[in-house]
Amino acid sequence: MTCVIGFDADDTLWHCETHFASAQEQFTKLLAPYGAELLPLARLMEIERHNMRTYGYGVKGFTLSMIETAVDITGGRISGHDIRNIIELGRNILDQPLEIIDGARTVLENLAGHRRLLLVTKGDLLDQEAKISRSGLADLFSVIEIVSEKDQPAYRRLFNRHGIEAERLVMVGNSLRSDILPVIALGGRGIHIPYRITAAHETAEDPGTAIKCESIREVPGLLDAMGA
Amino acid sequence: MTCVIGFDADDTLWHCETHFASAQEQFTKLLAPYGAELLPLARLMEIERHNMRTYGYGVKGFTLSMIETAVDITGGRISGHDIRNIIELGRNILDQPLEIIDGARTVLENLAGHRRLLLVTKGDLLDQEAKISRSGLADLFSVIEIVSEKDQPAYRRLFNRHGIEAERLVMVGNSLRSDILPVIALGGRGIHIPYRITAAHETAEDPGTAIKCESIREVPGLLDAMGA
Repeated sequence: MTCVIGFDADDTLWHCETHFASAQEQFTKLLAPYGAELLPLARLMEIERHNMRTYGYGVKGFTLSMIETAVDITGGRISGHDIRNIIELGRNILDQPLEIIDGARTVLENLAGHRRLLLVTKGDLLDQEAKISRSGLADLFSVIEIVSEKDQPAYRRLFNRHGIEAERLVMVGNSLRSDILPVIALGGRGIHIPYRITAAHETAEDPGTAIKCESIREVPGLLDAMGA
Repeated sequence: MTCVIGFDADDTLWHCETHFASAQEQFTKLLAPYGAELLPLARLMEIERHNMRTYGYGVKGFTLSMIETAVDITGGRISGHDIRNIIELGRNILDQPLEIIDGARTVLENLAGHRRLLLVTKGDLLDQEAKISRSGLADLFSVIEIVSEKDQPAYRRLFNRHGIEAERLVMVGNSLRSDILPVIALGGRGIHIPYRITAAHETAEDPGTAIKCESIREVPGLLDAMGA
């Protein structure tokens, strides 16, 4: 029976977190005139974490959290003009051209010939769909799922829905917390490719059970070595 | 072969648009002190329509559009305090208890025994999942799909994915534009149950090709009459 190779999308197949990081830098600059003592990113991280429960992942929730942070740390002094600038910071993330990670296309094209490929991503539905479509990679996957959370129950539902045995799945992704640990906990395997930035809400202790590599180009060789 | 009965969720199985309408009323009141001549709802509708392309449907995009409208029509004079109030208006929609539409549960329970039921809804992923889960109705459906748009291509993808023949599908919903017309265009049938409010972006000309009724309680009888 063929193995199923699952791929995360953001920061595994295409660049994403760099756009959030750039928005955060501009957010800090925008708030600097309101007080040098303000620590916008620390407060933003708290507010984002708190809002995650209601907003989930994605650019829209991130934008709302930036606005809330700006009102909060300026004690309401933030100007309407700057609120508009913050909305634009969020919109800029959505409008970024999609930049595929080096080697990803070749690797997927090679793997798709003799393995069943799965794409599992989380975030705003429309944004994720637009990125998948713009990537031109959609046809290489036999299953594409956009989920609101990538935890054990979410993977279990996905496995049931598509008749995937965890033992035959290798999940490839940049987030230990979302791509690797829940899959290993369900009996699958993982290949971890850290991205140069990890979002605060994606950090996790590395228990050392995942295979780690530096580039997606190493994935086919690792899969062969794993017998997957 | 069994017929497939598709159901829309918001304003077909549970109340939704009333919460948006209530938020809009409060939004108007909140902006009244900035100028009696302002027409916040007309401008909000324009901005929402424009933002739909990037934000898609759902409460988060609606909240961002309210904020943008408030900055715009007050010429930037909106206070930080009121920006926070607008964020809360959005959050209140997400926190509303789910209120199932009268008769929906009984009708679904009866139909589920001898027909394949499909749930197709659009909006923010996490919000829709939370509502489906809180509804306690999920187990009655053999397929649940949350999509970013309910147009012909979206229904076609859904039919292909689940092996549904359009000719054997009857779609039940409150929106002619999203639930009924695209399904009829693909060769399916529709039962239109207008809700007491229709969102501006859901309005459509009624070509008279859909069967119309006043309550979900009429659906089983109509299906029998249709031979579905």
